[in-house]
Amino acid sequence: MAVETAARQPLLLTRIADAREWVSRERRAGCRIGLVPTMGALHAGHGSLAARARSECDRVVATVFVNPTQFAPHEDFQRYPRTLAADLTLLGGIGVDMVFAPDAGEMYRGGATHAGTGAGASGVAATSVIPSTVAATLEGECRPGHFAGVATVVLKLFHIVPADVAYFGAKDYQQTLVLRRMVEDLDVPIRIEVCPTIRESDGLAMSSRNRYLSPEERERALSLSRGLAAAERAFAAGERSAAVLEQLARRELELAGAGPIDYVALADPETLDRPQRAGDRAVLLIAARVGGTRLIDNRMLQ
Amino acid sequence: MAVETAARQPLLLTRIADAREWVSRERRAGCRIGLVPTMGALHAGHGSLAARARSECDRVVATVFVNPTQFAPHEDFQRYPRTLAADLTLLGGIGVDMVFAPDAGEMYRGGATHAGTGAGASGVAATSVIPSTVAATLEGECRPGHFAGVATVVLKLFHIVPADVAYFGAKDYQQTLVLRRMVEDLDVPIRIEVCPTIRESDGLAMSSRNRYLSPEERERALSLSRGLAAAERAFAAGERSAAVLEQLARRELELAGAGPIDYVALADPETLDRPQRAGDRAVLLIAARVGGTRLIDNRMLQ
Repeated sequence: MAVETAARQPLLLTRIADAREWVSRERRAGCRIGLVPTMGALHAGHGSLAARARSECDRVVATVFVNPTQFAPHEDFQRYPRTLAADLTLLGGIGVDMVFAPDAGEMYRGGATHAGTGAGASGVAATSVIPSTVAATLEGECRPGHFAGVATVVLKLFHIVPADVAYFGAKDYQQTLVLRRMVEDLDVPIRIEVCPTIRESDGLAMSSRNRYLSPEERERALSLSRGLAAAERAFAAGERSAAVLEQLARRELELAGAGPIDYVALADPETLDRPQRAGDRAVLLIAARVGGTRLIDNRMLQ
Repeated sequence: MAVETAARQPLLLTRIADAREWVSRERRAGCRIGLVPTMGALHAGHGSLAARARSECDRVVATVFVNPTQFAPHEDFQRYPRTLAADLTLLGGIGVDMVFAPDAGEMYRGGATHAGTGAGASGVAATSVIPSTVAATLEGECRPGHFAGVATVVLKLFHIVPADVAYFGAKDYQQTLVLRRMVEDLDVPIRIEVCPTIRESDGLAMSSRNRYLSPEERERALSLSRGLAAAERAFAAGERSAAVLEQLARRELELAGAGPIDYVALADPETLDRPQRAGDRAVLLIAARVGGTRLIDNRMLQ
């Protein structure tokens, strides 16, 4: 008797109409649907989201779509890694049922509104979502239009795959706030679950962009998690000054030669307002370049 | 045996959670849901939308909400007529099952983004919808931010009452284009049906704002439909010049002493681009004040 160990590949759908029909059928059958939106190039962080969805839902859908409208013209849209075959194998191993992987033509049939420009290639702007003011700071300042692109495509995916729960990683902390506010403000009938950041054994937060790093850059990249840990130790010891906590983290980056630093910011966990002194809870967020690669990380201090 | 002629009042719900629950239950039971979004102050035009929904759907929901975010500060939000008791009687007579009539606090728990200002009263802007470029012209020029308010609230209503079909009147022609583009661009799983403008026997397009008109103003207001009819006769006789067709309509307004005129515009029925000569189909749109009341009307020329 053969032992069946081969993971089943998930069903791969690339058309909106097919994805809608599949989800409708499962919903009519009374299934609870979990959704894991991704840009592909999957790693164990994405895997943890899919596994959480698998444990909580009857059907799990992952989406793989490198969304052009959330990249500014000078960013890494063209070189962003595409690894669909490996992604399907990873998701199949976790028991994901369906993967929706449309191309940009399918997603933006009516034209797309691009990050930072507010207009599509045709000059005709499509309907889009303007996120709440929580999108204005930090990543919003460094990447104008980025969160409008994210919010718009995620809302589209929520409409195409009307799930009960959608899973996002805490590594993209500001994104989770933007999306939670979107769901609240627009009354979207979906629950957003934020799952912990998954790290390599040496502390580096998992990211699809880590594969851009040379071995030497990867060493320097450890300064982000090291800086957050230094600030966390100080916070645990009673330090509450935002300037001091930020400087502790910044010092690790500078010692490692990481940079330029986009921000090291202590912020309110809900509003991202910048207090002079931390309250009982604060989030410390970092964005910095290491070589040519822009990395982000964060840690909740509490 | 008593003859049952009394119309049943529809179920009135004012909380989002209650409306969601009602609709979920009906959907799970396999019912096809029709939605008629209104600002109340209902007339036979709204009635025709509800009757159409009644004839096509298993359950009919109407919403009554005077949406503050689609009014600019100088507009008639405060004095806009509120006639909920009469509205319920009218809708009950048509067989509407449920009326969702929230207050502004319920709809904008996270703060509201107001037309024309881009910020809520608190200075914190909530997530909102920016409509496509079809919103930029005509009403969009006269009422900055109006369509952002409309698109945002209608999307919220679509999320709260996930219907199969939503019914809108052709009198608000540009609004129907804005909403159709929104549904396409954001992949909203709902079908939009546009129903014919309902007119008084003398041609005046029904509008909640007609009740602002004095008897003398009401006479002058007939010049809008008269102007459209004049242009339509010329179009039928072969006239294709936009300037000539617009001038024919404008002349009726001027003769009646209606005005100021916001626009008399011949436009492409899909894009609202302004051709110099009409093609096989064109839409003629008018917005003008009669006394203190701003009225709109339009007619398809084909």
